[in-house]
Amino acid sequence: MRLIVIGFGVVAQSFAKLLLSRSAELYSEHGIKPRIVACVDKGGCAISPAGLNLQRLLEAKKSKGTVAFYDKAGSKFDPMQIIENVDAEVVLEATPTNLEGGEPGMTHIISAMRTGKNIISVNKGPLALAFPSLMELANYNGVMFRFSGTVGGGTPILEFAKRCLKGDRITSFRGILNGTTNYILSKMEEGLTYDSALDDAKQKGYAEAIPSLDTDGYDAAAKLVIMANWIMGMKVTMKDVDRRGISDVKLSDVKKAKQNNSAIKLIAACNNKRLDVKPTEVPKIDPICVNGTLNAVSFSSEHSGQQTIIGRGAGGIETASAILRDLIEIRDHVFEHSN
Amino acid sequence: MRLIVIGFGVVAQSFAKLLLSRSAELYSEHGIKPRIVACVDKGGCAISPAGLNLQRLLEAKKSKGTVAFYDKAGSKFDPMQIIENVDAEVVLEATPTNLEGGEPGMTHIISAMRTGKNIISVNKGPLALAFPSLMELANYNGVMFRFSGTVGGGTPILEFAKRCLKGDRITSFRGILNGTTNYILSKMEEGLTYDSALDDAKQKGYAEAIPSLDTDGYDAAAKLVIMANWIMGMKVTMKDVDRRGISDVKLSDVKKAKQNNSAIKLIAACNNKRLDVKPTEVPKIDPICVNGTLNAVSFSSEHSGQQTIIGRGAGGIETASAILRDLIEIRDHVFEHSN
Repeated sequence: MRLIVIGFGVVAQSFAKLLLSRSAELYSEHGIKPRIVACVDKGGCAISPAGLNLQRLLEAKKSKGTVAFYDKAGSKFDPMQIIENVDAEVVLEATPTNLEGGEPGMTHIISAMRTGKNIISVNKGPLALAFPSLMELANYNGVMFRFSGTVGGGTPILEFAKRCLKGDRITSFRGILNGTTNYILSKMEEGLTYDSALDDAKQKGYAEAIPSLDTDGYDAAAKLVIMANWIMGMKVTMKDVDRRGISDVKLSDVKKAKQNNSAIKLIAACNNKRLDVKPTEVPKIDPICVNGTLNAVSFSSEHSGQQTIIGRGAGGIETASAILRDLIEIRDHVFEHSN
Repeated sequence: MRLIVIGFGVVAQSFAKLLLSRSAELYSEHGIKPRIVACVDKGGCAISPAGLNLQRLLEAKKSKGTVAFYDKAGSKFDPMQIIENVDAEVVLEATPTNLEGGEPGMTHIISAMRTGKNIISVNKGPLALAFPSLMELANYNGVMFRFSGTVGGGTPILEFAKRCLKGDRITSFRGILNGTTNYILSKMEEGLTYDSALDDAKQKGYAEAIPSLDTDGYDAAAKLVIMANWIMGMKVTMKDVDRRGISDVKLSDVKKAKQNNSAIKLIAACNNKRLDVKPTEVPKIDPICVNGTLNAVSFSSEHSGQQTIIGRGAGGIETASAILRDLIEIRDHVFEHSN
């Protein structure tokens, strides 16, 4: 299978490393031999129809800051030229999430679909802003559109809901979808003020310099939108989420909750077709009441009861493992239908 | 699809109710129209090649204590005659778990395989005692052998490990696999002695009159064996488990753990090809440290980190939903290969 990789940050680099380290097993266990035939970042691109040498690609990125130095020349094609003109079965969209307009990921995904390429996106922006129309476009063009890494990092939250409860019906779900805010709230439970906890999260690399994507609940809301569309069949976007972040949570609120054997968590919930993200008091005994950077989601289903899945919600290698799952699924589907 | 149901206790009755209540969706969403063509319990059997009327079947069981009263006559065939002579695609083995010899389930499963019928077992006994050879026999006879309901009740622990982590490798797992002992230990944490907690569990219907299957760790060990074979590819049986139950756990041990922000749990673990079931001190902050009758399993995988799944480990309707998942999987497989 030939892949075009758009965006070569931590996650995409981890994916390249994963392909390097697991290539033998991928072939022997899954009959899959992925080749990255083009890779684009802000500085330029690297192209090789026979498949890029991933070791060299990673070294170029590390030593020179861009994959453009893979060859002496450093090709100057832009992502759109690559997507439209390079032959490949799959495009991996791994540019940064932008929740205002979704660009440049939105255009990349649409172009890839129009040229008949299957898509794996780890970029939440286009999905949060236009899930229903992107899914329609994918169906219209007969391509697969997968995005396991957008929710839960390496924790297979979307797969669990979609595959493990066949024959049953999920009626609602709720959980912690953002590790940064969960870390901050956990630190406040230990006695830190909001500002000190935020500084601590920044120091540890959990929070961005401008942390509002996390602290104002946008990241959790984007994931909630993806889950509501994919799992519940709703047709919703960011504007359908009633969203409140954690910046108003006071240390006194956190202490009060603790006295009740509870904790304040930023809970994203889909219930009766309503989508909410807001700070909520959760009993310690509830399985979703996890600490640190963990994510947790509880699904309520009609027959098999309430089930919770917990894992790290981020991380380069973890999210790369989600990309690999998507790739195997696309391969299985393409293979099945070409038989 | 035609099913033979052997054993008609709580789980099999819940399954019949589930088929009754969901028949329209099963057909519209999964293209599946299951018919129970024979049902056997201790009192006799009911047979109808066109499919038994499930309402009447459930009423016969409820009012007369056996399905033999479904017809005026009450057929007197035994399970082996039914399995060998009634045409069906699937046999559901739902007789009680027996960990000493595995009968009568063992013979039922072997006969069904030999006559080319796919098997769904909710009976742990035969699997715990002879998983490797039963799986070999299933492969030899070209039939599918599924047993989702044997671990976790309705919580899809086996499916999660097998399907949601494709392309990754589970390196170890540990968890709480028995709800009864977890209930007893949770009650001891609230201050009850072992004996009072056990009495309470009996009163609530969580523990049997002779509770040693649970309290001595046999049930957890049986589930551990099933998981080790299915998920890790090990070839093991009950005798490979190092097993210790909870009857020696003292209230003072539980109190001491509580002071350490921990709790004593009956942990089943598969680590470095070693299988253990034993009371273990677990930090409260560990996601598997759940209370009451909940089950919880954490999987450690090579790339996607540690992931935990939590849910009720038992219950009629929950386990029935696991049978339905198995049935859909068998249908998908049979359909795919007959295409």
